[in-house]
Amino acid sequence: MRALSFAAGRVHLDPHHRRPATAPGEARVRVLLAGICATDLALRRGYMGFHGVPGHEFVGVALEGPLAGRRVVGEINAACGACSWCAQGLGRHCPRRTVLGILGRDGAFAEEVRLPAANLHAVPDGVPDAHAVFAEPLAAAFEIPEQVPLRPGSAGLVAGDGKLGLLCAHVLARYGVAVTLAGRHPERAALLPEGARHAGPLAELDPANAQGFALAVEATGSPEGLAALLPYVQPRGTVILKTTCERPASLDLAPAVVHELTLVGSRCGPFGPALQALAEGTIPIEKWIAARYPLHEGEAALAHAARRGTLKVLLEIAPAG
Amino acid sequence: MRALSFAAGRVHLDPHHRRPATAPGEARVRVLLAGICATDLALRRGYMGFHGVPGHEFVGVALEGPLAGRRVVGEINAACGACSWCAQGLGRHCPRRTVLGILGRDGAFAEEVRLPAANLHAVPDGVPDAHAVFAEPLAAAFEIPEQVPLRPGSAGLVAGDGKLGLLCAHVLARYGVAVTLAGRHPERAALLPEGARHAGPLAELDPANAQGFALAVEATGSPEGLAALLPYVQPRGTVILKTTCERPASLDLAPAVVHELTLVGSRCGPFGPALQALAEGTIPIEKWIAARYPLHEGEAALAHAARRGTLKVLLEIAPAG
Repeated sequence: MRALSFAAGRVHLDPHHRRPATAPGEARVRVLLAGICATDLALRRGYMGFHGVPGHEFVGVALEGPLAGRRVVGEINAACGACSWCAQGLGRHCPRRTVLGILGRDGAFAEEVRLPAANLHAVPDGVPDAHAVFAEPLAAAFEIPEQVPLRPGSAGLVAGDGKLGLLCAHVLARYGVAVTLAGRHPERAALLPEGARHAGPLAELDPANAQGFALAVEATGSPEGLAALLPYVQPRGTVILKTTCERPASLDLAPAVVHELTLVGSRCGPFGPALQALAEGTIPIEKWIAARYPLHEGEAALAHAARRGTLKVLLEIAPAG
Repeated sequence: MRALSFAAGRVHLDPHHRRPATAPGEARVRVLLAGICATDLALRRGYMGFHGVPGHEFVGVALEGPLAGRRVVGEINAACGACSWCAQGLGRHCPRRTVLGILGRDGAFAEEVRLPAANLHAVPDGVPDAHAVFAEPLAAAFEIPEQVPLRPGSAGLVAGDGKLGLLCAHVLARYGVAVTLAGRHPERAALLPEGARHAGPLAELDPANAQGFALAVEATGSPEGLAALLPYVQPRGTVILKTTCERPASLDLAPAVVHELTLVGSRCGPFGPALQALAEGTIPIEKWIAARYPLHEGEAALAHAARRGTLKVLLEIAPAG
């Protein structure tokens, strides 16, 4: 089968990649569309020493298992199922897990992919393929209400107006949080939920906002984002950490100690509420799609995705149906 | 009155310092003993642009207010009493607060000090003066159970075997946490609570401890401590941040995101449980006192406190009674 792979910073289209061999409990999926994520760009640069087939945002058709023949999306962490973490329902933290297209498991920039059948979720009929690809990052945004209480009417700051920041803004708004988004693309105000405001770049945020937010989400994608965010969080407030970077940053956490902030690392989340939100169609996902490329133009697609200001680039891997 | 003051890195003993003038609701205290804390050493070096009379660990005799004539210790945050933080009982986070010997309020390295009368707590009769001085840092350790649940039998790592780390170890042990202390002074194993172990320096901790602790306390006093600690915390685990430094450090928080850790800034705490623990006499405080100096030898006392491996140095300001 055809598959795109990364090795030593290079992108390679292999026309004869070996089809995935499934382990017990796994199911193969024929991939229709895949999304390019900032993590993929980082993996290409060598994050986590990655080499292999990337891709962890996808929609496809299950070829096996209980959902055979149906359109599916998939949770990316494949757990061992036997350890104490798995027993607690926290397979996302299983120390022996593989992660689709990231760690020890070939990803979805290929005609077929394999995952534990239990990781697959059927896509509701009304959700277009191009929207279903957003299930994975939207689930990551829905991890926030799994971790901390979101209070209607409270003031929330989302730092970063990239894909993840925008998705987090939509999730916070669903819970009634009054969202202020800070980022470098004021034109993205049009992509915000009703009632949310775009306040321009974080570095230029009005000092009147100092200590003004009970909750803040750090989704800048930059290791410098957290230090810039801290002055705007209320004493005893909460900061959700969404950025994973390849490099450390200079950081003084004294303000977090003095103001007794709680910083909560937040990664992958539940697919159920993400698919429900996509089915409701209230997030203007369509506007986020900058371009679609066929798989054999993967290198051009990655270059497009890496251009400043690009939201989502999709890879078309197979025709639907 | 006599008072020690810091200005531009220098220490000055003023024999004719003006006695504190109290505001409504405040009470003067005649200081008996004061403790030198790492924060005082940092203030001398210019932390927070400090100049004035330092000192926030003390025991004295109240000269005014409901506790007049009694031995007292005092909470160091003097709140405005009128803002929304004060209304919530969080005067420790009042944005208009002054902080004894740290921010906008002369401290206890002087014959007299003033504080809101409501900040004073009577010292139980059986507690020696030299032990009562520890009420403030011990209260900071008791802030931990105010913020996060401490589970009996759970594994806790305290990083840093200085005064605050040792006090935190004692508080965790009171709640049944199985404490491992990491630090550079293995001889301090003798100062640990029963059942706790000293594991040597954090940098040399046995890799078998990786991801072994549900709770960790960062009390190294070094901005590099947190990065060194993170590999030992379980996924979804909690890290209490106690270190406030004058300088930033290079830090990669990606492990906190990937493992969804919760980092909780923790500062001052409740005096009630601290005084109760001191009254019970179960913490071997006596052994921690390295030296006692009269106030006029303040510079020598500070130099002693700054020597590597010194636990607590006390300043004798007035004879008891």
